[in-house]
Amino acid sequence: MATTTLKGTPFDRQVLDSMLRRRLFYTPSFEIYNGTAGLYDYGPPGCALQANIIDLWRKHFVLEEDMLEVDCTALTPAEILKTSGHVDKFADWMCKDPKNGDIIRADHFVEEILESRLKGDKAARGVTVAAKEEDPKKKKKKTKGIAEAVKLEDAVVKEYEEVLAKIDNYNGEELGELIKKYELKNPATDVQPEPPVAFNLMFQTAIGPSSNAPGYLRPETAQGQFVNFAKLLEFNQQQMPFASASIGKSFRNEISPRSGLLRVREFLMAEIEHFVDPEGGKKHPRFHEVADIELVLLNKHTQLSGKTDLDKVTIGKAVADGTVDNETLGYFLARIHLFLKKIGVDQSKIRFRQHMANEMAHYAADCWDAELQTSYGWIECVGCADRSAYDLTVHAKKTGAPLFVRERLDKPITIEEWQIDLDKKKFGPFFKKDGKTIETAIEALSQEKREALAQDLKADGKITVDVEGVGNGKVEVSKDLIAIERRTRTENTREYTPNVIEPSFGIGRILYCLFEHNYWTRGSDGGDEARGVLSFPPTVAPTKVLLVPLSSNESFKPLVKDMSLKLRALGISSRVDDSSASIGKRYSRNDELGTPLGITIDFQSVKDKTFTLRDRDSTKQVRADEDSIFAAIRSLVDGSKVWADIEKELPVFEGQDLEAELPVR
Amino acid sequence: MATTTLKGTPFDRQVLDSMLRRRLFYTPSFEIYNGTAGLYDYGPPGCALQANIIDLWRKHFVLEEDMLEVDCTALTPAEILKTSGHVDKFADWMCKDPKNGDIIRADHFVEEILESRLKGDKAARGVTVAAKEEDPKKKKKKTKGIAEAVKLEDAVVKEYEEVLAKIDNYNGEELGELIKKYELKNPATDVQPEPPVAFNLMFQTAIGPSSNAPGYLRPETAQGQFVNFAKLLEFNQQQMPFASASIGKSFRNEISPRSGLLRVREFLMAEIEHFVDPEGGKKHPRFHEVADIELVLLNKHTQLSGKTDLDKVTIGKAVADGTVDNETLGYFLARIHLFLKKIGVDQSKIRFRQHMANEMAHYAADCWDAELQTSYGWIECVGCADRSAYDLTVHAKKTGAPLFVRERLDKPITIEEWQIDLDKKKFGPFFKKDGKTIETAIEALSQEKREALAQDLKADGKITVDVEGVGNGKVEVSKDLIAIERRTRTENTREYTPNVIEPSFGIGRILYCLFEHNYWTRGSDGGDEARGVLSFPPTVAPTKVLLVPLSSNESFKPLVKDMSLKLRALGISSRVDDSSASIGKRYSRNDELGTPLGITIDFQSVKDKTFTLRDRDSTKQVRADEDSIFAAIRSLVDGSKVWADIEKELPVFEGQDLEAELPVR
Repeated sequence: MATTTLKGTPFDRQVLDSMLRRRLFYTPSFEIYNGTAGLYDYGPPGCALQANIIDLWRKHFVLEEDMLEVDCTALTPAEILKTSGHVDKFADWMCKDPKNGDIIRADHFVEEILESRLKGDKAARGVTVAAKEEDPKKKKKKTKGIAEAVKLEDAVVKEYEEVLAKIDNYNGEELGELIKKYELKNPATDVQPEPPVAFNLMFQTAIGPSSNAPGYLRPETAQGQFVNFAKLLEFNQQQMPFASASIGKSFRNEISPRSGLLRVREFLMAEIEHFVDPEGGKKHPRFHEVADIELVLLNKHTQLSGKTDLDKVTIGKAVADGTVDNETLGYFLARIHLFLKKIGVDQSKIRFRQHMANEMAHYAADCWDAELQTSYGWIECVGCADRSAYDLTVHAKKTGAPLFVRERLDKPITIEEWQIDLDKKKFGPFFKKDGKTIETAIEALSQEKREALAQDLKADGKITVDVEGVGNGKVEVSKDLIAIERRTRTENTREYTPNVIEPSFGIGRILYCLFEHNYWTRGSDGGDEARGVLSFPPTVAPTKVLLVPLSSNESFKPLVKDMSLKLRALGISSRVDDSSASIGKRYSRNDELGTPLGITIDFQSVKDKTFTLRDRDSTKQVRADEDSIFAAIRSLVDGSKVWADIEKELPVFEGQDLEAELPVR
Repeated sequence: MATTTLKGTPFDRQVLDSMLRRRLFYTPSFEIYNGTAGLYDYGPPGCALQANIIDLWRKHFVLEEDMLEVDCTALTPAEILKTSGHVDKFADWMCKDPKNGDIIRADHFVEEILESRLKGDKAARGVTVAAKEEDPKKKKKKTKGIAEAVKLEDAVVKEYEEVLAKIDNYNGEELGELIKKYELKNPATDVQPEPPVAFNLMFQTAIGPSSNAPGYLRPETAQGQFVNFAKLLEFNQQQMPFASASIGKSFRNEISPRSGLLRVREFLMAEIEHFVDPEGGKKHPRFHEVADIELVLLNKHTQLSGKTDLDKVTIGKAVADGTVDNETLGYFLARIHLFLKKIGVDQSKIRFRQHMANEMAHYAADCWDAELQTSYGWIECVGCADRSAYDLTVHAKKTGAPLFVRERLDKPITIEEWQIDLDKKKFGPFFKKDGKTIETAIEALSQEKREALAQDLKADGKITVDVEGVGNGKVEVSKDLIAIERRTRTENTREYTPNVIEPSFGIGRILYCLFEHNYWTRGSDGGDEARGVLSFPPTVAPTKVLLVPLSSNESFKPLVKDMSLKLRALGISSRVDDSSASIGKRYSRNDELGTPLGITIDFQSVKDKTFTLRDRDSTKQVRADEDSIFAAIRSLVDGSKVWADIEKELPVFEGQDLEAELPVR
């Protein structure tokens, strides 16, 4: 599938990429030191775009739902990430090339070589190989050796295809076996890499001057929110459900980062942890507000069936028929969709894909990704995982902290259970120093065990209990010390560990997709193919208004300054371009920066205080007095109007001198 | 000097601190894991306060002056920080206690013990020791042993005092000698610590899977801006002066962090790098706008004289008389002052202190700190350093990158200089493989050297040049291969490395000072001493409006929801408190959160859509219709009006039931 620009013309990634760098949307970090893979800096327009997206995110999620935003540290002591499972499980498999020392990601390596052989087979069979869409989820590296046209046996082709279909499923040992079995060699050296070893993706450091306090840079912002759960619940005056949220940098030490901004080692995340009672079907009180929103959903079963031609379905229906597990998960999928729409994601290039069981993170019970289509393939930009009670449970178990909700019951409930009574007066003196240990062990006995022991006690007049650390681990307790009876108890409160629904946004990836989705060239409108345009919605555009004096004539200066101050007072970001370049060139530069509006200050302006306002996308202009121009700008920037409305309201302007260098239309 | 609250009453830090934690402004990170010194999380109100301050900072600096904001990575390859001097010089001296393994900061240790001895001496002499103001710049730890009343000889007292006066000047070896000479022992173990060793304050890690790519977490955001200088200049269309700016986390591995939020290991910085031509006195085009602003300036000389009673002086005068070196530095000091004022810093608790030569960072040529007064003493919250051309020069030298400005000269200048001509046809063949090396060495010769060599050539018919790596390092070149002549050359451009003025804001420190500066209790107004108030200006307050329905009566719900939506549409953050607590308790909670305004929804509201609006600071209320209430809120939040204006415009309300639980006045 070929990717297209916003106007449906063929998309050339290299051209866009060179424009983005030239306009300093982003740049490889430390480039004068030859850079470091996977690290990128945002220049002024990228930084402003990012800030605007974050601002909208905060309004759309945090303010709209009174979420509790927190700012936690990136530095994290090792113990927390050990408990969360990241120290043991957040790893990829890597191999070393014994000849040149290259470090290779094992699954990518197997995938590349097998694909290259299949390609060679097709070539040998005379099948034309279609330009295949790249998929950075599979992070393909350009195979160094060109696929040789070697025909494979049919059975081998089938075997390779089967391996590739489940490439995400293999562990290190299995990947090592595949490398041996198929004699896979590094094209750069022609030798087989060493067996895969696990490489943890977290950056390690030491906190404080002694080396015995290891720490990591967080790989997600979530843990900071989980360990503060009890305080957040208290802050929320014990009311459930509620959500915390956090915007901040996270870090993943990728083995060999590629695909530009899509796979980096330091990135901005915006994460929500929505805590919900696991009982009662995880209903959401505002679900009805989104129930009619239509989404493209690609569930597990459809993926297995190989079907890709997907219909839109309302989230209400998807939850009703069980495609999406519950209302809370469905609510957030719809809210994510609305957010992506608002910031300018192409509505024909978005889908929600459910994770297959084998690709889920170690903590997730279910997960849907919002994927955006780009020239690299479908990119996971927002994950929406049901982490169940996993994190709160493991942290509570490790620390003893009360990471649960205690709920007052409207109607008390009665519980029938086996209760144990110890004759404390005799028990302590009888067991002496072991008394406390034995008592604790007895109190920890399960209901099933208690029932069995009650029968023993009745039958034998004594019971035998397992108590670690006392004698041989078996302790006998006679009936004069203990009684076990079935009784009824009344409970006025209920305790539960909330489940967590986690919408998690990779801001850098979203940013990159916005570039591809909003890019086109004037060529598609019959203009200059070399002139790029980024048609960001005005709300997210880095700068809203460009102020362009016709020339360096002194009489324009006070007007420019005045307009600039007035826009600032309205909270609308503007830039002045008073360089000596032609009007056309100056507008052209700002089309590439995605500036939606331009005001030209000319001799007429000096005379009568009227100005022209130019629309980036159509390059059309209107002319009006200052107040009308400002009113138009405000309504365009806050989204209450579109350019077509403005053209109806204000007189269209077609001044020859200004349009001279604009594209012919 | 005793610290006071906003109302001039004595300040109790423990009370404020416990309130800040209870209201979740901040909390030690990972507290359920017993925390880690120097790491703090911001809860919802702290996070909102921080976001509002950042928002104002961006408007006050970045938008106001069209600064180029960038977002660079915190992960930094070691090479960059080696070049910048941080790997070698960004360190403190630490000692190990051989008995218990304690790690001690050497300068703090010497300081503490000597001060403790001096205190003991005073006690022995019967002098009352005044409660001394703590100074976290000197990071005092509570001395474990209480000072024994031991009288010292007068000469010893004088010696100790001299050592303490220059405690910041000693290197590791000297600190070690002091420890030996005065037999300083760790009170915890009664043994002498081991000799001091340098401890670099940067967190180290490895970037990528091989261990040969060491990196650090940045200790400041500045380096990311410097290495991108050439691109930023290009983005700014080669116009000088200009500034870049960056807001982001930085990291310093403090040996033993103390003083709560004032000395932490991970912190938010906002830094500006203003690039200016070093020639022409570093004038600033907007200096006249700030020239009349009065600042409290504590310069180097005044500090030496011991004078502390400082007068205010206009920045115009301070630059004119040379107290502040130049207009650009002066401009930023004034702008920093205006910013701090805007966000709510107590104007009687701010001063600008010039660094003494010995306390300046390794890169700084001059530096003024904006210091804010707190219960910990005067705290450096904003540094304003003149980093001269230090950073651009070292990075350019290391990488060969063009980190300079090339300026077209209006009038070409003529330069008379010694020029060298080599007879290339003969030169290369004569020196063979060494030819290029010798040529490079000759071209690098200085004007002075060229002049001397010209005379040698005339006198001897040959010259001797030092060329490293060729023969014995001396190369003879005869006059048939070389000519050296004095000639005139015309230059149309000028190249220079800009100087950098760097205002650098520690946001966490500013936040803490705002807490102390805006805190008071109702006791000062004759109310309940236990009721704390944080009188943040409405612009920075975490939440602007509290919505309080009188009770849980169903008839209030639609009104509350409606008001809440309308405030959101106005971009004004609000919270609903519909808990069952009394109105008084609910307001009291929000006084502690610093919420400036409260709207009560009562039965009258249901009848006639009028509401009461409450002022946090005076607890007074007005009652009016919805539109008037919203207009009042808007003008208070945007700072165009104060409460006194509102009281004049709208009828004062004194409903008994609502005030019942408010403090008696």
